[in-house]
Amino acid sequence: MKGFAMLEIGKIGWIEKEKPTAGPYDAIVRPLALAPCTSDIHTVFEGGIGQRYNRILGHEAVGEVVEVGSEVKDFKPGDRVVVPAITPDWNTLEVQEGRHQHSGGMLAGYKFTNIKDGVFAEFFHVNDADMNLAHLPEGIPLEAAVMLTDMVTTGFHGTEMADVQFGDTVAVIGIGPVGLMAVASAQLKGAGRILAVGSRPVCVELAKEYGATDIVNYKNGDIVEQIMEMTDGKGVDVTIIAGGSVNVASAAVKITAPNGTISNINYFGEGEHIPIPRAEWGCGMAHKTITGGLCPGGRSRMERLIELVKYNRFDPGKMATHIFEGLDKVEEALLLMKDKPKDLIKPVVLVA
Amino acid sequence: MKGFAMLEIGKIGWIEKEKPTAGPYDAIVRPLALAPCTSDIHTVFEGGIGQRYNRILGHEAVGEVVEVGSEVKDFKPGDRVVVPAITPDWNTLEVQEGRHQHSGGMLAGYKFTNIKDGVFAEFFHVNDADMNLAHLPEGIPLEAAVMLTDMVTTGFHGTEMADVQFGDTVAVIGIGPVGLMAVASAQLKGAGRILAVGSRPVCVELAKEYGATDIVNYKNGDIVEQIMEMTDGKGVDVTIIAGGSVNVASAAVKITAPNGTISNINYFGEGEHIPIPRAEWGCGMAHKTITGGLCPGGRSRMERLIELVKYNRFDPGKMATHIFEGLDKVEEALLLMKDKPKDLIKPVVLVA
Amino acid sequence: MKGFAMLEIGKIGWIEKEKPTAGPYDAIVRPLALAPCTSDIHTVFEGGIGQRYNRILGHEAVGEVVEVGSEVKDFKPGDRVVVPAITPDWNTLEVQEGRHQHSGGMLAGYKFTNIKDGVFAEFFHVNDADMNLAHLPEGIPLEAAVMLTDMVTTGFHGTEMADVQFGDTVAVIGIGPVGLMAVASAQLKGAGRILAVGSRPVCVELAKEYGATDIVNYKNGDIVEQIMEMTDGKGVDVTIIAGGSVNVASAAVKITAPNGTISNINYFGEGEHIPIPRAEWGCGMAHKTITGGLCPGGRSRMERLIELVKYNRFDPGKMATHIFEGLDKVEEALLLMKDKPKDLIKPVVLVA
Amino acid sequence: MKGFAMLEIGKIGWIEKEKPTAGPYDAIVRPLALAPCTSDIHTVFEGGIGQRYNRILGHEAVGEVVEVGSEVKDFKPGDRVVVPAITPDWNTLEVQEGRHQHSGGMLAGYKFTNIKDGVFAEFFHVNDADMNLAHLPEGIPLEAAVMLTDMVTTGFHGTEMADVQFGDTVAVIGIGPVGLMAVASAQLKGAGRILAVGSRPVCVELAKEYGATDIVNYKNGDIVEQIMEMTDGKGVDVTIIAGGSVNVASAAVKITAPNGTISNINYFGEGEHIPIPRAEWGCGMAHKTITGGLCPGGRSRMERLIELVKYNRFDPGKMATHIFEGLDKVEEALLLMKDKPKDLIKPVVLVA
Repeated sequence: MKGFAMLEIGKIGWIEKEKPTAGPYDAIVRPLALAPCTSDIHTVFEGGIGQRYNRILGHEAVGEVVEVGSEVKDFKPGDRVVVPAITPDWNTLEVQEGRHQHSGGMLAGYKFTNIKDGVFAEFFHVNDADMNLAHLPEGIPLEAAVMLTDMVTTGFHGTEMADVQFGDTVAVIGIGPVGLMAVASAQLKGAGRILAVGSRPVCVELAKEYGATDIVNYKNGDIVEQIMEMTDGKGVDVTIIAGGSVNVASAAVKITAPNGTISNINYFGEGEHIPIPRAEWGCGMAHKTITGGLCPGGRSRMERLIELVKYNRFDPGKMATHIFEGLDKVEEALLLMKDKPKDLIKPVVLVA
Repeated sequence: MKGFAMLEIGKIGWIEKEKPTAGPYDAIVRPLALAPCTSDIHTVFEGGIGQRYNRILGHEAVGEVVEVGSEVKDFKPGDRVVVPAITPDWNTLEVQEGRHQHSGGMLAGYKFTNIKDGVFAEFFHVNDADMNLAHLPEGIPLEAAVMLTDMVTTGFHGTEMADVQFGDTVAVIGIGPVGLMAVASAQLKGAGRILAVGSRPVCVELAKEYGATDIVNYKNGDIVEQIMEMTDGKGVDVTIIAGGSVNVASAAVKITAPNGTISNINYFGEGEHIPIPRAEWGCGMAHKTITGGLCPGGRSRMERLIELVKYNRFDPGKMATHIFEGLDKVEEALLLMKDKPKDLIKPVVLVA
Repeated sequence: MKGFAMLEIGKIGWIEKEKPTAGPYDAIVRPLALAPCTSDIHTVFEGGIGQRYNRILGHEAVGEVVEVGSEVKDFKPGDRVVVPAITPDWNTLEVQEGRHQHSGGMLAGYKFTNIKDGVFAEFFHVNDADMNLAHLPEGIPLEAAVMLTDMVTTGFHGTEMADVQFGDTVAVIGIGPVGLMAVASAQLKGAGRILAVGSRPVCVELAKEYGATDIVNYKNGDIVEQIMEMTDGKGVDVTIIAGGSVNVASAAVKITAPNGTISNINYFGEGEHIPIPRAEWGCGMAHKTITGGLCPGGRSRMERLIELVKYNRFDPGKMATHIFEGLDKVEEALLLMKDKPKDLIKPVVLVA
Repeated sequence: MKGFAMLEIGKIGWIEKEKPTAGPYDAIVRPLALAPCTSDIHTVFEGGIGQRYNRILGHEAVGEVVEVGSEVKDFKPGDRVVVPAITPDWNTLEVQEGRHQHSGGMLAGYKFTNIKDGVFAEFFHVNDADMNLAHLPEGIPLEAAVMLTDMVTTGFHGTEMADVQFGDTVAVIGIGPVGLMAVASAQLKGAGRILAVGSRPVCVELAKEYGATDIVNYKNGDIVEQIMEMTDGKGVDVTIIAGGSVNVASAAVKITAPNGTISNINYFGEGEHIPIPRAEWGCGMAHKTITGGLCPGGRSRMERLIELVKYNRFDPGKMATHIFEGLDKVEEALLLMKDKPKDLIKPVVLVA
């Protein structure tokens, strides 16, 4: 079969591979919709997860089941499914300890491209199908559904880790697709004021639609100063980091009030240390909690997010600014993600 | 001054009392908007909190400060304020233990009518003004603001106590004003499907507007059977009890899945026991948590709810189906609450 | 092989069955130590879980692995293992939702005797061996280890569900082995005062050793009155129910302060309803949370409890008042549990 | 009256001041036992909280009430009291938001020496007496009681912020008095293995007595390597930082497993940034939560800790290695703290 791969760091291309086969608990899926992710760009062009040779890219997919193993109970060929970016082995002690994302080791719940071939192919393999696939109900457009696999679960996790309360003031730093979903989820968790930090007009507009009440543009000056002024020196209850280099963490701590939470959903690809500003962290005494984590995956998570779309709680499909048709357009979509033209939020490739 | 009072259980009427005076930390407020509450009806006609003589009724008010004590810092005469139904003494150990509603004893954070005169008067007294009043911003209509004092904080507390998670299926039993706010808050906390149990058309319509996805009408059969069928026998993640007699708790436990929460915001006025069905509670082993509590009060709570209205997260003003003008209309509004005509959700009295 | 079984409700006896076989993820274990449980008595003599024919009894065992399936990685024949009473299927959505005890349905994580043969046999079957067995380290006596499988995990769960805080006053109602472990765990979670409700001298003595500061004997009068007097009318922060009929829940609510938790670890075998006293539950408004649940099982849980014994945090072996030798003594041990002689806390059967 | 003061940064000495007077809610207390704290040393010799002139030092005291304001209800002259280091104004919105330590601003719950004169004087002032004092029961030695005011509440807060669970493996970095109380509290919260990082023999011995199972000595090599080896590469569930420079945070993150918590109770006095190691923090994705906060103060907290001592849950008095008599010995005790002789854990000054 054909797949679009990272040939090595810095090189991409189409390759031929054997169609994967399903073990007793697994499924083989063919894609119906695919989306490239910024982390694909990091992976292939910056070596974000290290060297990989001829590894098929991609971890955001909605598809159709074409084959299932003998022990799979809830899925059968022909079923349309949402495939989470995080597909852990569920039979591990990490799961018993409540950390499925780190099943098999830190971040090892992330398998596509990282540990095995990804989804940018005619077919791909899903381990533990009953635990990692979710049925896609009628009536949810493919471009909305494919957002659930990573962008939505990641953005929403930012809000969850911060345990947003009714009336909280929330800052979201970065309003690419993950940040936009952090904004949407902050509203859906009961935030009051939502300060979205970003500058690209296409994102700013959608941030407002998803619930941002104020836009903070770094081009208008230091964001810390702007936010402290906007909040009368109090800072915010919650800061969600959804983009930026390690220094953004420093700004995040500064704008967060004592007892507040800084919740990171950004992959920090470079830098030896993430700097926490000592004084503004109250010399270690301010009860400003800093956390961050890989998005939840698995079936139950996908089913919950599907419910939110099904009942019109929000519409992630609005982020699909560019829609392509045909598997071979994956390359173009990926490069678009790399180039980030002005009007791009997220490209989606529909596969007939 | 004039006040509308419970003369004794079963009797209401206008009385004359001395205008209250402010201690050093207190404020005297004149009402701008008042709302009668079902619990006023319980109090006066059913003796819900026991006997009281010539006690001024009412605990839902927005007003204007007319006098403050010497130690009050943040409020001055002329300020427009939201007055929570729950106005605790904040200098108590219960507050240090995280239960301001029970400051001074179980439920003793509820002072209006219960411990001192209520708000249905030309003037009323607010203890601990800096801690119990909140500034009403421009642009929030009085009929929306007055809902925050009790209906909103109560309904939202139902959702908070249940710690609703993204995609939860939530049942709300009872869709009077408190139940409607439970529905609205469940949506605002990220619920997926919301089953609202009620039958009055005016409430059903608003429940849908606030986020209910399904209406369960007891006239169509046993609500437990209906809900179990609608959820394929699984039950719901969260049940919020917002009305009914003690037996409703039994239904609530039955429709809630293992590990789910039953969150009560209904005042149970009668019955010796609240019956928990043994078998459906898993013989004590099902991890179905049952909780319930008086709504949070105080300034910070009101400020947080004001933020939600200010940023258009929801509009509680829609519940004000009947608007009266003039303090003397409080009697008519209260009796309307007692009679509950078909088109009533909540009456509000505006006071010039 | 030989097994000691419930022949039908009310009848026990030895039977012959085929030795069980291991599926790819399973293990076959032969017992080294067994303990009968009060719930075995409920099961066989009161029909607590309904009718079962020729079902081997017992769910508390430490053993030696004699056979493993092809996919088992961490265990091999000859390994000495602790076998939790709760051995769920881990590949279920309930696990993803954080409720492994209810994997496959309410309480269905409890498999021995309930869903398949129990452990009172020459050999028994353990599903999902890598997820449900734990290695028994050298130096932990068998009679201590066998307590971990049910008594310890259950008693400790009472404390966990109540989220005991430093300095909490905790009441434990019932000081059989589960209640004793609730006492021990309350001390280990930082409780201050611990009121143990019980009367049998052998239990009273051990309760004190495990951390009880006060003993409340129902023979000296109503326990609610006694405890309210001992706490100057304030009640306790946490009540753990570890024994009694459904009415004990009523007492538990009465002695618990507003904002407190009632945590149940008692199997209520009879009665249609568990009665919550309306007035003392604050008419639904007191923030007295009532919860209860089946003990956690699985490997990680057992490993954590093993750590506590290994590092001498407490010694559950002290509960083993009667030690028998030989599998055939299981009958005598079980009947002892039924008769409850004065000096009994828990019998253990060692199997060479 | 006489007081021992920071004259300016780097200079200490005895000064004369007016005896403080009590406002309506306040109390004046004379010390019965005092203890100098490492943070007194930071304050006066390193300018840890900035410049102060003629400010009386000290924030750890047990005393006798000599005067109370007109509104104080629960205390009267002659009462023996424990005075927490943190004595917030309780009438602030921060308290309503659950952060009394930051009442009036970040860290502003810490008033002695910081905002007003401290306790090293013939008399000292306590604001909000009913909320900030706790009665000292008979039978608790003064040297144990004075530890509660800061060392115990701080050390225990480390464990609380980390929400230690049964069987957790906990590392405590630094075993001065605060670290020792972190060790004791980890045991009291149900930790299994406790790795104490330190080298001074007097501290090592007491750490073992308080529950440490392993000692990690930095003189034997890099502590990260040692701990990773001791835990088979897994790391620990919780790390409590109780000493060290900003770089210790980097080690703490490295030794903590995914999903673990790093809980800081150390005052970081120097350095622009606290460095979080990017790779070991999972590039922001590891769910390693970093938090830290000023110890809880107030009456209820002290009462809870008093309960723990009263019921013999642990004995903080063991840390009092050096006992002085007479207020004038405060100087010697403070300088001892500065010099840290080999056999010192904590000096206490008893005042007749």
